[in-house]
Amino acid sequence: MSLGEFELIKKYFCQNDRGTGIELGIGDDCALLNLPEGKTLAITTDTQIEGIHFFKNTSPYYVGYKSLLVNLSDLAAMGAKPYCFTLSVTLPEANEAFLEEFSKGLFTLASKVNIPLIGGNTTKGELSITISAYGLVDAGKALRRDKAKVNDDIYVTGTLGLPGLAVELGYKHISIDTLIDGKDAFTHCYEKSMLIEDRCEFAQKLVNYSHCAMDISDGLVGDLKHIIDRSNVGAKIDVEKLPKPSEFTVYNLDEEVQDKLCLYGGGDYELLFTAPKENHDKLEELSKACAVKISKIGEIKNGTFEILKHGKMYHQNVKSFEHF
Amino acid sequence: MSLGEFELIKKYFCQNDRGTGIELGIGDDCALLNLPEGKTLAITTDTQIEGIHFFKNTSPYYVGYKSLLVNLSDLAAMGAKPYCFTLSVTLPEANEAFLEEFSKGLFTLASKVNIPLIGGNTTKGELSITISAYGLVDAGKALRRDKAKVNDDIYVTGTLGLPGLAVELGYKHISIDTLIDGKDAFTHCYEKSMLIEDRCEFAQKLVNYSHCAMDISDGLVGDLKHIIDRSNVGAKIDVEKLPKPSEFTVYNLDEEVQDKLCLYGGGDYELLFTAPKENHDKLEELSKACAVKISKIGEIKNGTFEILKHGKMYHQNVKSFEHF
Repeated sequence: MSLGEFELIKKYFCQNDRGTGIELGIGDDCALLNLPEGKTLAITTDTQIEGIHFFKNTSPYYVGYKSLLVNLSDLAAMGAKPYCFTLSVTLPEANEAFLEEFSKGLFTLASKVNIPLIGGNTTKGELSITISAYGLVDAGKALRRDKAKVNDDIYVTGTLGLPGLAVELGYKHISIDTLIDGKDAFTHCYEKSMLIEDRCEFAQKLVNYSHCAMDISDGLVGDLKHIIDRSNVGAKIDVEKLPKPSEFTVYNLDEEVQDKLCLYGGGDYELLFTAPKENHDKLEELSKACAVKISKIGEIKNGTFEILKHGKMYHQNVKSFEHF
Repeated sequence: MSLGEFELIKKYFCQNDRGTGIELGIGDDCALLNLPEGKTLAITTDTQIEGIHFFKNTSPYYVGYKSLLVNLSDLAAMGAKPYCFTLSVTLPEANEAFLEEFSKGLFTLASKVNIPLIGGNTTKGELSITISAYGLVDAGKALRRDKAKVNDDIYVTGTLGLPGLAVELGYKHISIDTLIDGKDAFTHCYEKSMLIEDRCEFAQKLVNYSHCAMDISDGLVGDLKHIIDRSNVGAKIDVEKLPKPSEFTVYNLDEEVQDKLCLYGGGDYELLFTAPKENHDKLEELSKACAVKISKIGEIKNGTFEILKHGKMYHQNVKSFEHF
């Protein structure tokens, strides 16, 4: 059975296109949006492409989930509350089995954070998903990359390096024989790297204790470099303080490999933020209240960007991941 | 010479990312936007893919121009004033010659309508461009597909069918030997179909005389059907009133082919709108003031959707273009 384009949109994507302030959702030339007074709109857009952002034959459920997650991660990085999103899907064919699972993954996460899909389009071509997501933040409160101050502490949420390990396993640069819950290492790590938890709730409260955040998509070091450049500061990070996933121990990974995955792995979609030292206790309270682990990994300084391990120079002269 | 992703964005796309209300443009996790009081935000997104929306080896200048034009066309269809846009480009390689021409085409149109680029991303993959565009419209004034009323006249801007002819020529379904300005028929028609004039200025004033509009992207008949469905009305269109491009005469095209191209061709990116009969003179004035040709091609009725030619039934039971 083959559905036409409009039927297909209706069947899989018209599930939830209304919300406060959404005057018009799917079905016209544009969606129409009103902003509550005193709010600024945060806008982000991200593309996920088969073979680049996810391996071929990845479960469509994961693809749907993660396509939205990477955009929510950008909203969280500004401290914005998810408001609505649009979806552009390019598909080689109108594969209903794919769409069924894809939309399940997408709407599982969309429902969790209560974000309606207000429009989009479907096209024929190589599998690719572009989502634009919109969030609301109180005027003047957005977390910006250019707001880090000297003496701020540097924090990250969650753990780093597992998505990086999944990629290394997928490309067979690393091989691990240990099973976890009966799953081989690639399957276990890849699943976790596709179903990353969103940081939306935590981020909305973080605006009270921080002015500067970004999400870690291209690797901690390269991403921190963006903050440093835009804020015109230096930084020091302590490699021994990086939060590592328990899998690194279970898999008995070499320590140097562990460190490199945390520093350069990418795909973490955790928050990297800075905060004045006096906010430390408040941040610990927030961490508990939201059940989101945070780790202080260094501080903003004048001058250069140093990566230290137990006080000794570990690495300098860093570059972030780039697509070209 | 190969540029990295961030250098590439800086060189080709950071030309103009500020404007009234744009608090933060390119370079953070999100752009930040403020809305003037009393305005509603219109949001649209459209993807252009090589081999689907444009032929392989199309001049990158045209691709840049048209990728934005199709989105401006959606804003115009709501009567919205262009506010800002984001761009997601997927490219097989960091081809600077491509990007140079692509960004020229893109910014030629962006400058004309004064719309800043506020963010986006570049990725590696099959050539594809997704733009999301944002426009402002006075609260309650947006032109909507569900607002057509019985007895409204139906109008279109410009002429119909030339982009449809370009596609037929490109696929060699039609062959024409006549040259225009020394150019073969495909080159002439295809260039025109890639460099379509935007209807933004006309549309912003149209909100005073119309409540219902959409843009013609998938063919007049199929698109009018969307208005009919959503407004819960019928319609009659008179084929002899369809505005044809002068090329149809120069090329000495068969009349039936001409009619079909106007009715079903698609890719016109002209406005289709309805208006109360008493607004006819005002619309003619607006047409003159903006130098945008308009043609009354039929009217909204109760009951069915009829396509007539000189009063006789021409076609019923119509379907719009769908990608699957």
